[in-house]
Amino acid sequence: MTTGPFATATAVTPTGDGAWRGEIRPGWDIGGNANGGYLLAIAARALVAATGRTDPVSVTAHYLSPGKPGPVDIGTEVVRTGRRFTTARAQLVAGDTPVLAVLGTFGDLDGETGEVFVDGSPPDLPLPGECVILGATDTFAPPFMGQVELRVHPDDMGFATGRRSGIPRITGWFRLHDNEPVDTVALLCALDAFPPTIFNAELPVGWVPTIEFTAHVRARPSPGWLRCRFTTRFVTGGFLEEDGEIWDGRGHLVAQSRQLALVPRGQLPPAR
Amino acid sequence: MTTGPFATATAVTPTGDGAWRGEIRPGWDIGGNANGGYLLAIAARALVAATGRTDPVSVTAHYLSPGKPGPVDIGTEVVRTGRRFTTARAQLVAGDTPVLAVLGTFGDLDGETGEVFVDGSPPDLPLPGECVILGATDTFAPPFMGQVELRVHPDDMGFATGRRSGIPRITGWFRLHDNEPVDTVALLCALDAFPPTIFNAELPVGWVPTIEFTAHVRARPSPGWLRCRFTTRFVTGGFLEEDGEIWDGRGHLVAQSRQLALVPRGQLPPAR
Repeated sequence: MTTGPFATATAVTPTGDGAWRGEIRPGWDIGGNANGGYLLAIAARALVAATGRTDPVSVTAHYLSPGKPGPVDIGTEVVRTGRRFTTARAQLVAGDTPVLAVLGTFGDLDGETGEVFVDGSPPDLPLPGECVILGATDTFAPPFMGQVELRVHPDDMGFATGRRSGIPRITGWFRLHDNEPVDTVALLCALDAFPPTIFNAELPVGWVPTIEFTAHVRARPSPGWLRCRFTTRFVTGGFLEEDGEIWDGRGHLVAQSRQLALVPRGQLPPAR
Repeated sequence: MTTGPFATATAVTPTGDGAWRGEIRPGWDIGGNANGGYLLAIAARALVAATGRTDPVSVTAHYLSPGKPGPVDIGTEVVRTGRRFTTARAQLVAGDTPVLAVLGTFGDLDGETGEVFVDGSPPDLPLPGECVILGATDTFAPPFMGQVELRVHPDDMGFATGRRSGIPRITGWFRLHDNEPVDTVALLCALDAFPPTIFNAELPVGWVPTIEFTAHVRARPSPGWLRCRFTTRFVTGGFLEEDGEIWDGRGHLVAQSRQLALVPRGQLPPAR
């Protein structure tokens, strides 16, 4: 178990019968609603405890209601325990309000990435000091951005400067404050920490609430900055997907994600 | 509700208290174990009934045990009902054996694909008559392949001829027998119907059991053959992902999928 501000903000304590209590901390929000990856990390802490496994291997969350600061309860149920993996579900509730439904398979990963076939490469990024610090810009400073260290490629900052690239892509660096190690639960937060890719498309789209988010973790990352890439290929049917990749300092893929977000009606031009 | 051999093979009947009964039909297997997309379709029929929504929007299954022919029970629980979507979970069990844990959000889609941004295109395929019929080849004829109509691009048949392309990709056509319409539940089956992409890589990999499978459905497909593309980019950490896309006769993306499969230890060369 790591220690640091992220570990503290996602900590859970058992309340018996497979339930845990945590707290949505103030300041981890985007416009008043807690960041989705942060919420999932709280639920994942409970699932790590419930399964007795150290790492999420594949975890899916469906977002039911916005998360507001305050205590939350995480009920868990182990579905199957195998030799290498344990599958379990969780529900994170705030009072009577269900916030998150989660289903995941957990295991015990190590740092070995066993690369056999890799069709891809880490995003090419300027050094962190030459990238844009989110949370420090006047134009895009939701409270959450101050809780983790994000450095965005200058070419992908068009959403903030008004010069959108037209390419729904965001690349940048991620790490935690105070050199807190990024464990595999913190990777879940990293996979949802950057601004939506769609902000860089030349589309009149603002708020895109996440319906569902799935992360696959391949290995524990090496220490230090992580390279992150987020892309969207299809804005169709009133939905969009956003795919994430995280690469560690060794140049190895450590996590992948895909989320499905709703493009609220009325934001877009009529279907062709 | 459509009718036809696929509808019959995935039919469920209510048994009360949010539970349904279905049957894993003989002949829907690969080497004795029921195809994963077929199993998910049975669970999805119960979730369609439980939620009162016609279409899976995002559905995730974790595979717990192989499915064998015989009766199955599907317990469901609605987690949240919203204005446009309902989120619910399901567990498919055979006797006392849990086979599948499912979490999904369901809605009411229509045929409108509302294309706003599309970075991709349907796979370029020879006409179905010029592709290879799976289930009719001597070299790759698991029983499941006879239950649906699959036509594979000749360039992607290397796994059967021994001339592997080295590219972990499969493209081809899908439709149901007897011109049964492919509804959005049948899309879940189509997304898992083709041979594993990894069969075409030049790797000594055979059996790759699915840990988790997530499908996003964007729209109801137009009638007729569907174009399907499956690709794998990363075989690392003892896992591989397989991404699927299905495009309909109008040239519109109607569904996406990603699954995480295990590469059993001992099949691969040591990590670099």
